[in-house]
Amino acid sequence: MIDLYTWKTPNGRKPVIALEELQLDYTIKPVDIGRDEQFQPAFVAISPNSKIPGMVDHDTSVTLFESGAILQYLADKTGQLLPASGAARYSTLQWLNWQVGGVGPMFGQLGFFANRAKEKLPLAIDRYLTESKRLLDVLEQRLSRSAYVGNDEYSIADIAIYPWVVGVMDVNPTLLADARNTRPSMDRWMTTLAKRPAVIKGMKVLQDA
Amino acid sequence: MIDLYTWKTPNGRKPVIALEELQLDYTIKPVDIGRDEQFQPAFVAISPNSKIPGMVDHDTSVTLFESGAILQYLADKTGQLLPASGAARYSTLQWLNWQVGGVGPMFGQLGFFANRAKEKLPLAIDRYLTESKRLLDVLEQRLSRSAYVGNDEYSIADIAIYPWVVGVMDVNPTLLADARNTRPSMDRWMTTLAKRPAVIKGMKVLQDA
Ligand SMILES: N[C@@H](CCC(=O)N[C@@H](CS)C(=O)NCC(=O)O)C(=O)O
Ligand SMILES: N[C@@H](CCC(=O)N[C@@H](CS)C(=O)NCC(=O)O)C(=O)O
Repeated sequence: MIDLYTWKTPNGRKPVIALEELQLDYTIKPVDIGRDEQFQPAFVAISPNSKIPGMVDHDTSVTLFESGAILQYLADKTGQLLPASGAARYSTLQWLNWQVGGVGPMFGQLGFFANRAKEKLPLAIDRYLTESKRLLDVLEQRLSRSAYVGNDEYSIADIAIYPWVVGVMDVNPTLLADARNTRPSMDRWMTTLAKRPAVIKGMKVLQDA
Repeated sequence: MIDLYTWKTPNGRKPVIALEELQLDYTIKPVDIGRDEQFQPAFVAISPNSKIPGMVDHDTSVTLFESGAILQYLADKTGQLLPASGAARYSTLQWLNWQVGGVGPMFGQLGFFANRAKEKLPLAIDRYLTESKRLLDVLEQRLSRSAYVGNDEYSIADIAIYPWVVGVMDVNPTLLADARNTRPSMDRWMTTLAKRPAVIKGMKVLQDA
């Protein structure tokens, strides 16, 4: 049995989608980051970086934080959603890293400066809007040549990227008004993923919490 | 033979340290990001995200970008610097992800707003300085309990984090004046790593370019 410590944010949705795809038994443990629950000692013992998601696999006694590591762990545990070896494995891990190191932090900074910051700073908003659009262009290019992001098959790279692409457009509907209809390959990929039952379930995790 | 496309920055130094530790044959291909060489088509074919580092392993025909994926590839190729399985493997990958998704982007934003930005924005500088110090505190906590960051042994997690910790202090000597002497475990770890020949060589890559 797996305990997943998570919340209704892009990083929090990623492991839920993976657990659903893999049909593993799991229990959701909500960590309300709006109420600073990520700083409570019981959670910090699992995630010393005080960020969600965190995971405890009671079958193996493995405790993890960082969504990228959790996704890779779940994929290796089941032998699914990540090729076992060879070029396709590292291509998938490369795009997973691109989400963790680029898409997540940059879309996140745009969310902060364009929406949450009390003072609106044009230099900062422009910096992160430009970078976010550039990252969406990189994704469009990739999807114009490949059915899925990591390799020819659906993988943990798609699971990592999709909630962030949906999220950045939801949070910035005006700034990114034509982001989707000017990127036909990304649009095709989003339509495909949106139909997967596991994706539907993951995107709704804790929505009423 | 491996071609490494890189530059004299923290992300560029990481794979050089790994290649040196692993005693693999490699050729450095400089990509001068100060002259926008990361946007040249021959490099974009390897790194479609237009960022260094990129790698081509001619023995296996594997082409990769994203330093985290390159480090994992090199470790798996040689069976070194990353435990092959079990809790220690995923602990190492978790701290590698923490560098890729947290330390790198946040120290990088501090560098931009505190140093490179034409306009000095106190809200932005304060945001990234606070987060950078918090990340250094997380590292200190970890190293007060473990000899190395990822597990008990030196690993690709240490190789990923070290160049960024050195770099953030070099670039912000005033803002982070007491960052090292108030964090004794981090200081001990930095002293240990600084003595490794591979680390010394990696930190100096392209220094005269
Ligand atoms: N690189 C981390 C990022 C995790 C992250 O930023 N989580 C956010 C929610 S999406 C969080 O917990 N924020 C609370 C805080 O920063 O205090 C991962 O991929 O797991
Ligand atoms: N997540 C990436 C980040 C790579 C990155 O940001 N590289 C910087 C140099 S440290 C770069 O190429 N910058 C040039 C640019 O952004 O145009 C990785 O770990 O490889």
